[in-house]
Amino acid sequence: MTPYSSLEARFARLSAIEGAAGILGWDAQTLMPEGAAETRGEQLAALRGLAHEILTAPETADTLAEAEGAGGLDGWPAANLAEMRRSYIHAAAVPRELVEAESRVRSRSEMVWREARRDSDFARLAPHLAELLRLEREIGQAKGAVLGLDPYDALLDGYDPGMRRSIIDPLFADLTSWLPGLIAEARARQAAAGEPLPLDGPFPVETQRQLGLTLMRALGFDEARGRLDISLHPFCGGATDDVRITTRYDETDFSRALMGVLHETGHALYEQGRPAAWRHQPVGSARGMSLHESQSLIVEMQACRSREFMAYLAPLLREAFGRSGPAWEPENLFRLYTRVEPGFIRVDADEATYPAHILLRYRLETAMIAGDLAIADLPGAFNDGMRELLGLTVPDDRRGCLQDIHWPSGAFGYFPTYTLGALSAAQLFKAAKAAEPALPGCLAAGDFAPLRTWLRTHIHERGSLRSTDALLSDATGAPLGTAAFRSHLQARYLGA
Amino acid sequence: MTPYSSLEARFARLSAIEGAAGILGWDAQTLMPEGAAETRGEQLAALRGLAHEILTAPETADTLAEAEGAGGLDGWPAANLAEMRRSYIHAAAVPRELVEAESRVRSRSEMVWREARRDSDFARLAPHLAELLRLEREIGQAKGAVLGLDPYDALLDGYDPGMRRSIIDPLFADLTSWLPGLIAEARARQAAAGEPLPLDGPFPVETQRQLGLTLMRALGFDEARGRLDISLHPFCGGATDDVRITTRYDETDFSRALMGVLHETGHALYEQGRPAAWRHQPVGSARGMSLHESQSLIVEMQACRSREFMAYLAPLLREAFGRSGPAWEPENLFRLYTRVEPGFIRVDADEATYPAHILLRYRLETAMIAGDLAIADLPGAFNDGMRELLGLTVPDDRRGCLQDIHWPSGAFGYFPTYTLGALSAAQLFKAAKAAEPALPGCLAAGDFAPLRTWLRTHIHERGSLRSTDALLSDATGAPLGTAAFRSHLQARYLGA
Repeated sequence: MTPYSSLEARFARLSAIEGAAGILGWDAQTLMPEGAAETRGEQLAALRGLAHEILTAPETADTLAEAEGAGGLDGWPAANLAEMRRSYIHAAAVPRELVEAESRVRSRSEMVWREARRDSDFARLAPHLAELLRLEREIGQAKGAVLGLDPYDALLDGYDPGMRRSIIDPLFADLTSWLPGLIAEARARQAAAGEPLPLDGPFPVETQRQLGLTLMRALGFDEARGRLDISLHPFCGGATDDVRITTRYDETDFSRALMGVLHETGHALYEQGRPAAWRHQPVGSARGMSLHESQSLIVEMQACRSREFMAYLAPLLREAFGRSGPAWEPENLFRLYTRVEPGFIRVDADEATYPAHILLRYRLETAMIAGDLAIADLPGAFNDGMRELLGLTVPDDRRGCLQDIHWPSGAFGYFPTYTLGALSAAQLFKAAKAAEPALPGCLAAGDFAPLRTWLRTHIHERGSLRSTDALLSDATGAPLGTAAFRSHLQARYLGA
Repeated sequence: MTPYSSLEARFARLSAIEGAAGILGWDAQTLMPEGAAETRGEQLAALRGLAHEILTAPETADTLAEAEGAGGLDGWPAANLAEMRRSYIHAAAVPRELVEAESRVRSRSEMVWREARRDSDFARLAPHLAELLRLEREIGQAKGAVLGLDPYDALLDGYDPGMRRSIIDPLFADLTSWLPGLIAEARARQAAAGEPLPLDGPFPVETQRQLGLTLMRALGFDEARGRLDISLHPFCGGATDDVRITTRYDETDFSRALMGVLHETGHALYEQGRPAAWRHQPVGSARGMSLHESQSLIVEMQACRSREFMAYLAPLLREAFGRSGPAWEPENLFRLYTRVEPGFIRVDADEATYPAHILLRYRLETAMIAGDLAIADLPGAFNDGMRELLGLTVPDDRRGCLQDIHWPSGAFGYFPTYTLGALSAAQLFKAAKAAEPALPGCLAAGDFAPLRTWLRTHIHERGSLRSTDALLSDATGAPLGTAAFRSHLQARYLGA
């Protein structure tokens, strides 16, 4: 057995442990009885601890060094070895005591956050969040020291390999320069056109579920290797060959569940489309969070809120719910699904105002990690930012800085990937349409094969073979920019 | 940290890994998409491999020796340390290469068995089963060498600690002496009384499910720490604080699902009733398979097929299914649920003929492990036994030696625990009634508290504090015997 093949066996074992944790995490969000929470926490901690031990074992380091020294690899195996090294560096950079301390503080902070959000009581969360921030900064410093990065970039690199503030800052500055004007113009146009007609319920859950499954299948979701279930907070999780997406149904409004299913299906297609021969190896993983989000947004925002898609969707909805009339015509659906309206809640935001939520969070979390913003000052800074960026006065912290679980669960450096994903999605969709001119017409006919095939070839099947930047450049001919996103918004919202 | 407390931490971690595997195993039988089977196999193999590594690590052996040497423990901690040693001996006795070889051959054999049973093609299974038997005999020899037992007793000890052929043989010989006569007499009485009235369907699945949940709750199943779901083969699984039972519904016949739910609820009550303070430690585990089966049978057979229970069940059934008339009266239900009729299939057998299926399998598997019965001769020996013990001519191997998964999955030494469980259930139920004379009347009123409380105190909460034999003697005043089972059958089937 060569050093490299011994590493392959080791990382396949890690993949199995991570897959086990993925299914247990899914179960915890969907079916687990409430009394099992503590025991489940212990199960997940045990699996994560074992994975960390295996990954950071001296034997892993020695074998990595041997394999790198032996050389002779190229293509996929070479990229796989580089990804193994990357995983090792991120895991080994953080001392075990710090990993364990962070895990304990995080569990506590997440729990307190649920109550604090419910009661809109930031003070209750503050000490836990401050302690967690202290540990995240330590982790950022520890990783940064090894990676040669500043702490925020080091954390960011854990979610989106290769992503840096130096890439994000100019992109976000550019967005800031034109997005507010575009939003104002879009809103004025929509106000002038009047309100779209509402879709009146009720909409039975089982009908919604069947409709979701129909659309998942049409998009290419493989039901032999995945499931659709229900959870309070929709997500795409599970394991290799076992991709589990969730949604949440509301009998008075089917649209959120429906668009949620389409969004998660985008994530799922990425997971199901990863290179089969490498699916248990690091190089067979999805590249990073911004590219992952691009796959959900290319399906939900680019494809499935398009005028063309509404031509396909409208008759499906009419038949499923037994409705008819002008509210159920494609044009009205298009207007409903492309409303631009600033709001307090990020996860409810439309694609035009969404980046403002991210700009704000990015600004705040970089300041927190840099030590320039104390937890005590977070609510004020959040509310100031909402006023500045979206013109809204936050009424309470529940609808302000307490709304997201990210920071209370230690995820600093994650938020920007949402908007980077939106930019990537626009750029990829534009390239796909250029390569497949029939693509929009196919959407109108419910034929997603051209889009899916293009994404498979250019993104899904390439796994982590190259950097995010290189994958995107290979697929679109240019590095990540804002131009495609701007053109997309102009075309959709300004008729330009 | 003392050696003992370090062992507690190690075994808590093992408990977490086993719990994780329990949930993944449950998921594989209930919800998992078919394409995930291979990956799931890898996940479970990884977890089992890790658990085996942790358990058999030199550090475990050293710390066990230190803790035993240090002394000073008594009561629960002392029993816990003894159970840790037991687990270690069973795991460490088998060389790793043999564990891995057995795991591979077993997976293959289980897969081939499914096809072989479907096609009633024993020849297809035979070479795999022969190879597996060879490995099980090796395992039995390896464990036996360490435990000072013959190979069959060593395997048996893995399922039912402390159980020995020297205990089983006289019990089974006694059963053999009087059970055939009792069956014949019961059948003659039932023939003379005529057929009970059938319960005509259809019975909607959701109604059956709700009825099952109602009875589970009445019996004391804690829904905050467990679930009821559907699987092809009903079982009780999951993890600590997360006990998952399953059943399978048939719209033309609710009785099998219902009795199945009651049976699995008996297992679940044992799991949910284990001592809370020790639930992640070996001493907090259920004692063994015969006592576990006694808990399912005391609920299903002793309590829930009794005349008293029918008084409670009949109105529930009438209301749930909207039926009425003489078929739905307690006496007819009692006659339906206590039919004695020899049949080919073990899992469908009534409580009077069931032991014959076990006597046969015990006879055959002890011979196989001893090297006295070759796989090629198994079908003939099985069919001869069915003729001798139940007077039936087996028409094909599907309804003969291919019907059970136990042997093809390497479970030699498991079968006798079913009948030992039936004997224990009768003995425990008799003791419970003696201690709580109101118990039968409470069953008629749907009040299971007296039975549950007695079982909690005498069995569930005692975990693995003492041996099976000691637990049973403490609870009933006598070691395991056949007298209570015989009296139970005589009372129920012969009116004696």
